[in-house]
Formats: sequence, C-alpha cells, structure tokens
Amino acid sequence: MILTLLDYASAFVFALTGALTASRAQLDIVGFAFLACLTAVGGGTLRDLLLEGRTVFWIADPGIIIMACGAAFVVFFTAHLVESRLRLLLWLDSFALAIAVAAGTGVALLFAQPPVIVMFMGVATGCFGGLMRDVVANEMPIVLHQRKLYATAALAGSATAVLLVRLDLPENAALAGCALVTWVLRAGSLRFGWLLPVYRSCPKREK
Amino acid sequence: MILTLLDYASAFVFALTGALTASRAQLDIVGFAFLACLTAVGGGTLRDLLLEGRTVFWIADPGIIIMACGAAFVVFFTAHLVESRLRLLLWLDSFALAIAVAAGTGVALLFAQPPVIVMFMGVATGCFGGLMRDVVANEMPIVLHQRKLYATAALAGSATAVLLVRLDLPENAALAGCALVTWVLRAGSLRFGWLLPVYRSCPKREK
Amino acid sequence: MILTLLDYASAFVFALTGALTASRAQLDIVGFAFLACLTAVGGGTLRDLLLEGRTVFWIADPGIIIMACGAAFVVFFTAHLVESRLRLLLWLDSFALAIAVAAGTGVALLFAQPPVIVMFMGVATGCFGGLMRDVVANEMPIVLHQRKLYATAALAGSATAVLLVRLDLPENAALAGCALVTWVLRAGSLRFGWLLPVYRSCPKREK
Repeated sequence: MILTLLDYASAFVFALTGALTASRAQLDIVGFAFLACLTAVGGGTLRDLLLEGRTVFWIADPGIIIMACGAAFVVFFTAHLVESRLRLLLWLDSFALAIAVAAGTGVALLFAQPPVIVMFMGVATGCFGGLMRDVVANEMPIVLHQRKLYATAALAGSATAVLLVRLDLPENAALAGCALVTWVLRAGSLRFGWLLPVYRSCPKREK
Repeated sequence: MILTLLDYASAFVFALTGALTASRAQLDIVGFAFLACLTAVGGGTLRDLLLEGRTVFWIADPGIIIMACGAAFVVFFTAHLVESRLRLLLWLDSFALAIAVAAGTGVALLFAQPPVIVMFMGVATGCFGGLMRDVVANEMPIVLHQRKLYATAALAGSATAVLLVRLDLPENAALAGCALVTWVLRAGSLRFGWLLPVYRSCPKREK
Repeated sequence: MILTLLDYASAFVFALTGALTASRAQLDIVGFAFLACLTAVGGGTLRDLLLEGRTVFWIADPGIIIMACGAAFVVFFTAHLVESRLRLLLWLDSFALAIAVAAGTGVALLFAQPPVIVMFMGVATGCFGGLMRDVVANEMPIVLHQRKLYATAALAGSATAVLLVRLDLPENAALAGCALVTWVLRAGSLRFGWLLPVYRSCPKREK
C-alpha cells in the first residue's frame, strides 16, 4: 500500500523532470509525454525486472502511465511561467530521487533481500530513471555532476532504512527515514555545496 | 503467425538502418553486425522482457539474428552506391518504425493488456531499437529530432489499432491500419514537414 | 563452479575499469563505486535477464557487489600512481572482455542454446558492461573505436568455444580457448594494430 503510493509519487515527480528536460529540448507534446514516461518508470522498471517473480509496476497498474502523461501535459502548458527551468528540474529531481530510493528500498525489503542488495536496489531505483532521461536527451547525467552528492545521498538513504529495520522499527518509519536522509543530503549539496572529497589526478604535486 | 512476420520484417529493416549508422561511423564488418543486431532486436527485446511469460523473440527464433547479420553484410558491400546515406537511413527507419509499432501493438493485444499498455508497448517497441542505435553511436536520437513527428506517429498508429479492435475489426486489419497511420504521419513529416506545435520558452513576448 | 569464478573475475576487472573511468570524470568515492558496479554487472545482468529461468547472478550472490565496491575503493586511493590511466583502462578492459565473453558463452552453453545464441550471448555479455560505462560517462564507447578489433575479438572467441565443444572437448577447455582467442585478438589489435578492413564511403575513387 505504502509502496504503491511511493511508486506513484516518484513517478509523478520524475515525470515532471522528464517533461522539463523535454521543454529544454523544445519537443512537441508527445515528446514531452515520451520523456516523462521514460523518466517516471525507468528506475522502478529496472528494479522489477531484476527481482524475480515481480510484475513491472506500471503494467500491474497502468494508471501510472496516464498520470505521467498528465504531468507532461501540465508542464507543456506551464513551463514558460518558470524563471529557471534547470533549477526547478534539479530541485524536483531531488524530491523524486528521495521518494524513488525509498520505493526501491521498500520493495527489496519486501522481497527479503540481503542488505547489500537492498541498498543496491535503492540506489538503482533512485538513479536509473534520471540517468535514462539524461542519456536519451544527450545531457551530462545529473548523477555524474561533479562536486555534488547524488548516488551518495541515495546510498546513505537506503543504508539508513536497512539500519532502522535492523533496530526493529516499523518498515514505514524506516522508509520515511530513508527518504528524509536522501533528500536532506541531496538538498544540502545543492544549496550549501556539501560534498565528499573527489578524486584528483595529482593532488598536491602540481601546485 | 502475422506477429512473427512483423518481427522479422521490422528486424530486417532496422538492421539495415543500424548498418547504415555503422557505415557513417566507419566500423568494420563485425561492427556493422553489432549495431545491426542491436537496432533490430532492441525494441522487441524490451517488449518481451516487460511482458510476463514471454520468451524473448530472437531467443525463441535465432533466425532473426542471422537475418540481421545478413542485412549488415549487404549494407557493408553496397552502402557506397548510395548517394545520401542519412536520407536513406531516415526513410528506412520510417518503414521499420511503422512495422515495429504494429509488432509491439499486436503482441500487447495478444496478451490482453489494457489500452494504455497496448499503446505504450507499440510506442516503446517502435522507438527503442532506433533509440539504442543512436545512443550507442553517440548521435542525437532520431526520436528527439526537433520539428518532426516520430513518437507522435507511433502513438497515433497504436491508438488506431486499439480503436479498430474496439470496433470489432479483425486484428490483422487493425495492425495494418496501425502500420499505415504510423508510416503516413512519419513520412508526411519527413517529406512535407508536418508537425505538432513544439514548446517555446517565450512564445511571443520576445518578439 | 567455473562459471561462478568467471563471473567473479570479469566483474572484478570490469569494476577496475569503471573506477578508472570515474577517476577520469573526477567523481567522489560513491561515484567510483556506482560506475564500478554498473560496469561489473552490466553484461552479465543483460545475459541473465534474456535467458529464461535464470536468477541475475549478483542477486544470487551479492558478494559480487561488495567485491566491485572494494575494487572501486582500491582505485580511488591508488589511481594517482598510474602514469596513463587511459592505457591501463584499455588493457584491463581487454582482460575483462576476454573473461566476460567466456562467462557469457559458458552460461549460454549450460542452457543448451543453439550456436548463434551462444555466440550472441558471448558478445553481449562481453561488450555490454563496458558499453554502459562509456555511454553513462558520455565517452565514445570503446566497442565502436575505429580501427580496432573489439566485438570482432569477442565473436571470434565465442565462435571458438562453440567449435571446441562441437569437437567434443570438455567445456572448461572450450571456455579457456574462448578467453584466449578473445584476448589475443584484442591485445594484438591494441599493441600491433591488427584490424579488419573498415567501411570507406568512397574506397579508391577520391584518390
């Protein structure tokens, strides 16, 4: 139940980001719907294909596709009201990431996977939709943007959920904690520049 | 039966477009076969993975792979006879798109999916092979080319099939209608510039 | 048993190449792990999704993911010691390719697939992880580099395995032959420039 809700919510917000990407590429309305659907269902589809015995969520419930097209429709007619579409895209994407990580983590927990798979599914479900959106639109994937937390935030979020479930908290609380940690880290990175040390080819020598 | 035929035909024409893309990237003959196979089976493979209980079509019938390699072979030795390979690629792709949309729509109808999934499968089967071809070859995906109908043509085609089946026409007639509508819209867009209004950031204001 | 070993070995070496790619993109440590895992499991995951009734190998054995993250960790702290990371990447990739082609070929033989599918699975398992790594990192896929054998080496390797099995050699010997032929062809191409004739738009005329 809560998992269905998470799938709907992440699909909706990811659909908005896909449609915003379509607006930056100046596509027509079906192009908006195409990129919106791809982004909305990409991560969850990968998760459902990888886990055995699970029907792909939007085939089990086609309302998801209709909702993603609706989101594309709204963006098509309102995106010109937005001052910075890139900034809106990044912030919406941060919410979609947090919800999708929780959705992926929750389904993997439901399938009683070991912790490392639960975390992997959380990160993959969170990152894959946006990754496909950016690869298809020929933009640098947000997940690889330098000097920003993204996969790191997703990993910290799903690790939080694994930990909370280990501490015998109810699963819904664990998933709420997962989404919260993911979003706070990603938002902090966007707003305050939080980051992990990155790789430098010649750390000191060249100075 | 008719579905097998459609899979063969779309694989063959898509294989030609993949090989033409390989010729533009100046690959060797195995590179031609690689891109030809990827393009030929990409869309149908996605469709078969998503639908439960369906064997991937080219594993059920490996002749498809042999045929795609044959197409690559032919293009390798004859492409230099063509004046504009890009134009030939776009026109062949329009035929492959129309056939593949019908193939995806037909299989989804066979699996008794609801209309929204049937249309989604039609569009995905039609667009995904070409999308993979262009993403792998590092070209701008044709499906995102500006000021052209592509996903729109695919959607109109599969919607036509859904409608005709609702009107109790035989399925083969519905699939023929699907391919025809898809191709006419795509060809009209290539030849006469038919298009839907596209998104513009500041429609009138800046003038 | 030998197949598990091949999956582990190819995942490990591919993880190193993914992490090296991450170092070229100056990512943080989680970005290293992300690209390492994607590259390590990409090809085998495709193989396992395509073959019916097979669990994805790293879900059956999550140790693979942990090992790939370990490889990323090692590269993160030692890559600055390497003189030419691109050259190391190409050479490691040649080993990973050879092992992964054997892994894909071996699993397809185990599933008693016809020769054309066995060869296809060998090539796909070998090439797909590196392809995803390069597409996601927005680099030209190594498999499409001009004037080098890559898919060709993979195809020759898996064809060798098919042939050796036909000659009633034990399967392990066939897989060893497969890896050896793949690697020798790829290494010879990197070191001595071995290649197949490539397509030229106007072979002689323009001279």
